[in-house]
Amino acid sequence: MIDSDRPRRLSVLGSTGSIGVSTLDVIDQLGGRDSFEIMALTGNGNLELLAEQARRTGAKLAVTADESQYMALKDLLAGSGTAVAAGTSGLDEAADMNAGWVMAAIVGTAGLAPTLKAAARGADIALANKECLVSAGPLFVDAVKKGGGRLIPVDSEHSAIFQCLEADQRHALERIVLTASGGPFRTHTREQMANVTVQTARTHPNWSMGLKISVGSASMFNKALEMIEAKHLFDVRPDQIEVVVHPQSIIHSMVGYTDGSVIAQLGVPDMRTAIGYALTYPKRPTLNVDRLDFAKLARLDFEAPDETRFPAIRLARTALERGGLQGAILNAAEETAFNAFVEQKIGFLDMADVVETVMDAMVDGVTAATIEDVFAADRKARRKAVEAIARR
Amino acid sequence: MIDSDRPRRLSVLGSTGSIGVSTLDVIDQLGGRDSFEIMALTGNGNLELLAEQARRTGAKLAVTADESQYMALKDLLAGSGTAVAAGTSGLDEAADMNAGWVMAAIVGTAGLAPTLKAAARGADIALANKECLVSAGPLFVDAVKKGGGRLIPVDSEHSAIFQCLEADQRHALERIVLTASGGPFRTHTREQMANVTVQTARTHPNWSMGLKISVGSASMFNKALEMIEAKHLFDVRPDQIEVVVHPQSIIHSMVGYTDGSVIAQLGVPDMRTAIGYALTYPKRPTLNVDRLDFAKLARLDFEAPDETRFPAIRLARTALERGGLQGAILNAAEETAFNAFVEQKIGFLDMADVVETVMDAMVDGVTAATIEDVFAADRKARRKAVEAIARR
Repeated sequence: MIDSDRPRRLSVLGSTGSIGVSTLDVIDQLGGRDSFEIMALTGNGNLELLAEQARRTGAKLAVTADESQYMALKDLLAGSGTAVAAGTSGLDEAADMNAGWVMAAIVGTAGLAPTLKAAARGADIALANKECLVSAGPLFVDAVKKGGGRLIPVDSEHSAIFQCLEADQRHALERIVLTASGGPFRTHTREQMANVTVQTARTHPNWSMGLKISVGSASMFNKALEMIEAKHLFDVRPDQIEVVVHPQSIIHSMVGYTDGSVIAQLGVPDMRTAIGYALTYPKRPTLNVDRLDFAKLARLDFEAPDETRFPAIRLARTALERGGLQGAILNAAEETAFNAFVEQKIGFLDMADVVETVMDAMVDGVTAATIEDVFAADRKARRKAVEAIARR
Repeated sequence: MIDSDRPRRLSVLGSTGSIGVSTLDVIDQLGGRDSFEIMALTGNGNLELLAEQARRTGAKLAVTADESQYMALKDLLAGSGTAVAAGTSGLDEAADMNAGWVMAAIVGTAGLAPTLKAAARGADIALANKECLVSAGPLFVDAVKKGGGRLIPVDSEHSAIFQCLEADQRHALERIVLTASGGPFRTHTREQMANVTVQTARTHPNWSMGLKISVGSASMFNKALEMIEAKHLFDVRPDQIEVVVHPQSIIHSMVGYTDGSVIAQLGVPDMRTAIGYALTYPKRPTLNVDRLDFAKLARLDFEAPDETRFPAIRLARTALERGGLQGAILNAAEETAFNAFVEQKIGFLDMADVVETVMDAMVDGVTAATIEDVFAADRKARRKAVEAIARR
């Protein structure tokens, strides 16, 4: 149970993905329907799960992003009392439902429009979609500000920083230290990395995650995206963002202050802590997750990231320094390169080369005035990435 | 410079000791007289340093605890504009000066009365004296509450916990994890420990400290005292206090929450961070202390304390469970045993035996109604410790 007079109204955009499923688990742990009133759930292909979630939580609205699945979902939810919608307009409707708290967990650029909409109407946003900050940072942060809601990161690193950064001590913030596991190739040579397969790249040492994020961890492009997110979330200069490799992933990230103090957030690798924190913020919930046993941990290691083997870190700095739409460009080029790597069209190290080529080809100083500008840059970067891949 | 409209009025009780000297250094770093108006400084034997500090800071009052040194100090400060006092009444006068912030850094039971006085009149207390909490915890905490000032710990471990424990998250506090360096005998066998000399016991691996505190670190009696302090400072149950050995002393302590999160405070071993934090609380100052470099640190280790080799931890738990005056008894017996160890009357491991004998002989369930009860228990414990030492 959370400490609240009445059930908190919330929507989960992207409820059938990994973060969405964990969110519903946390909601169950915290009292389910007694504590939370679910307004909208949205999913994509996994209709059975979406329908089951809607029935279990008593959601007011269930939305499939796939327009062609509208009738199928309607059938699954017949007699449940849950309204059904589909496609872009359905996602819009979900974002517009009167929920004070919205988990934004739709993966990819598809999450951009509904999350922006929820932010603009003043909902508290628990943010798990990375494009909102990486591709559309200033637009999105502005929408949150104008809407008047709170922005609470759900990524384990950014949640850690958020937890370590007390509101009244922003004046003394000196640096943000993002920790990175280093992934499965932390100790590989560049030569070894050139020849790795998708199968080895997806085996993350600490977290169980999807393919895209596992490969991103292996290349450290995840960390690159997190650096860009951190810049917008915490309003810091690029030189205030440090990355340190910490193979055990126990310290989720840290904040350094002007008095020499560093405040760190630690925990077992379990997304439910960050989700629960966002769900009941500013109070902490009581969660059934494993506790850290320091004697058992025995040791925590740290090393500087090698930017020759992991150029993603360097590219993130470049994108931050250039500003404009370079974040959107990096993200779109990286997704395209990732797909080519999975399809075995390019090697592991080629991904960074493709991203750099596209970034360098699109240094135009244009900033995004509207979300359409972001989409345009995204499309153009993907096109240029495909060209760069074809040339290899 | 601190962020404040006018100079903050403060007094440093115990300005010539290690914490006092660091406090004046921090005050210099933060703008000296432009930021702080020094009301009173007190010292003991080191008159030259006390006089120099008073002249440098323009203190209104300088007090030597040693009554016989009154005239000598008066001579040293002739023409300075600093008033001079001495002895117990002088310390009382210093505690009573109109300072909104008081550094309580007088070592030993001598610090008890003036610190209580300053707390009772409502000053914010930056606490470096351990007897206030170990020997007179409930009395002292009550005096602070009634006075209405804030209590800000200066010990690196307790400052760490204070920094990690956000005011609005007390409801979710699950455990406190005190870190301990393990001292110079961390990897010794009990047999080796039985024969160590004072000289080896004083060589602390990380912090440069006085003899008493160095030997207390070697025996982990420091940690025992800190456990008792933590109980009173943070109002937790004994079973909520964990100790973990962390040889590098980089994590100064941690707080575990009900959501599985652990928040830690880290830093180089430099008392000025904790002092500065207390001095400008709730804002953090900008300090010229070394910053942590995680890649350079390379690793942090943890292990469970071995309570067979370090019985102090077990004795602290016993004292906490028994309550009453057992904290004062443990502290007094330990000081007496420490002196006997330094004088080579007993061996290193005998210290804990003496403390345990005295604690067991004084299980009477009496609680302190006044500070006199604390002094009486302290005296009796010292007497009993001398007897126990003589019997060995």
